[in-house]
Amino acid sequence: MSAPGTHPPAGAGLHDFLRRERERVDAALLRLTDRLAADAAPGLREPIAYALATPGKRLRPTLCVAAWRVARGEPVPGAVYRLACAVEIVHTYSLVHDDLPSMDDDALRRGRATVHTVFGVGRATLAGAALIPAAMRALDAAAAELGLPAERRGRLVAELCRASGALGMVGGQLQDLQSEARPTGAEALESIHRRKTGALLAASLRVGALAAGANEATVAALTVYGEDLGLAFQIVDDVLDVTASAEALGKTAGKDESARKATYPALYGLDGARALAARRVDEALAALHGAGIASPELEALARFVLERRN
Amino acid sequence: MSAPGTHPPAGAGLHDFLRRERERVDAALLRLTDRLAADAAPGLREPIAYALATPGKRLRPTLCVAAWRVARGEPVPGAVYRLACAVEIVHTYSLVHDDLPSMDDDALRRGRATVHTVFGVGRATLAGAALIPAAMRALDAAAAELGLPAERRGRLVAELCRASGALGMVGGQLQDLQSEARPTGAEALESIHRRKTGALLAASLRVGALAAGANEATVAALTVYGEDLGLAFQIVDDVLDVTASAEALGKTAGKDESARKATYPALYGLDGARALAARRVDEALAALHGAGIASPELEALARFVLERRN
Repeated sequence: MSAPGTHPPAGAGLHDFLRRERERVDAALLRLTDRLAADAAPGLREPIAYALATPGKRLRPTLCVAAWRVARGEPVPGAVYRLACAVEIVHTYSLVHDDLPSMDDDALRRGRATVHTVFGVGRATLAGAALIPAAMRALDAAAAELGLPAERRGRLVAELCRASGALGMVGGQLQDLQSEARPTGAEALESIHRRKTGALLAASLRVGALAAGANEATVAALTVYGEDLGLAFQIVDDVLDVTASAEALGKTAGKDESARKATYPALYGLDGARALAARRVDEALAALHGAGIASPELEALARFVLERRN
Repeated sequence: MSAPGTHPPAGAGLHDFLRRERERVDAALLRLTDRLAADAAPGLREPIAYALATPGKRLRPTLCVAAWRVARGEPVPGAVYRLACAVEIVHTYSLVHDDLPSMDDDALRRGRATVHTVFGVGRATLAGAALIPAAMRALDAAAAELGLPAERRGRLVAELCRASGALGMVGGQLQDLQSEARPTGAEALESIHRRKTGALLAASLRVGALAAGANEATVAALTVYGEDLGLAFQIVDDVLDVTASAEALGKTAGKDESARKATYPALYGLDGARALAARRVDEALAALHGAGIASPELEALARFVLERRN
């Protein structure tokens, strides 16, 4: 399958492509934030706006838009970026709750004080939970803007519900929490990350592809790509936790070891973990090629996940 | 509007009617719990099942089914009870989070240890959040079982999202949290309860009515009824907190006063608060009558809210 009109982001172009997409996502997110904050009760506006303004790579929405391009190419309607933001809103909720004292207990996230540090645990818990229905509503609104029929809109919301639920992201976070100070093997570690990161990454791609009307074979291949990419992402996260400084990470480094969490470097060594991440990315790309998907963007994003420094 | 085939629950019949509906809801909830638990990651199953097994009045699902009967009468398909359970799942999530140490910090709920007391704060926070997308999925599945078109199913999910979000339930809980140890007037107190309780009670009725294909005038009247009933419910809650024993309540009594929360008895005195609750119920019933809705069940439920002892 060719993606008509897509401009391959190769070499130095990757950086520009990622920045351009991040800027578009940030603009859409800002607009959505205004609407969400206006819709929120006093006292929830500030923590919701603060959480959504956390700077980020916007990997999930970028994947969503890239999946849309796989089926439709350029130009990408603005509503696709708002659709993609729904996934980022779910991701943001998970970060707010992950940072809570009862979870990872982090004071720093992407170089800023975490939401509960600024607004207190109660408000952070409520604001995080409020982002879940907000994401579903944003998704449905953007899908309606795109003129998608109700059946398809319902499927998109169901996709996001499933990925963010007890078998997906939240399930993975719980397993992660329980793995602290407890022996965890390679299989359990993969199960954690498949749920915690892979489920939402795959959902980002599925939402973008389904909104674009991609066929089921394409959706299935993108799902495998997303799950493998999620695993690679987490392995690299573990490696960076060991090798990078807190300054580069924008969060507390060396946290995994001090929490005695099971990590890929602990199980495989640093080089072994790096090799495993590269293998996951190879598998992700093989899934695309097997389905005849030629997407320079998704290839570039896979390289980015492997080579990122923070 | 007459409700064909509805059997008026009058006098002694109210108790039987409520018990019968509660049993049907509990049976549907048990079946849904099995499915939800099977769908959850290990470690989330237990807190999710425990939370959903908390005994309760099942007021919200009973309202949902009663609203369905307003438009359709008997017999009520089993799927309507599963639809109604989606609202109870959202309510259950709110109870789990309300009880957290960072919120109301309650160790006892309906006579049982609260979820975080048994499973820890982290698991309780995650299990609570996981119930939100689970409720949306349960709602959509039950609506599909009822053969509702995708457009209508999407509207039902949107209704539940709105009621459970930052302008609805979560917004009210935040305002409630912030009202502790701070002077709160009558207007602010009403705003809190309109959001915290009224929004989900109204949504229960709207979901039932919309699923039954009720016209917009009926839906609007049921909304006013639900919001007024929610206010009456909270006023009675405040009164019971002062007058009832912990044993009768199944939760810590006198908590409002020790938290120096604004309450209706504090603002209006016990008799004044009771009179205000009665006026709210009158207004709720007037909304029904104004729209020509003759529902012995909704009248009985309004009386129940006023006269309940726990």
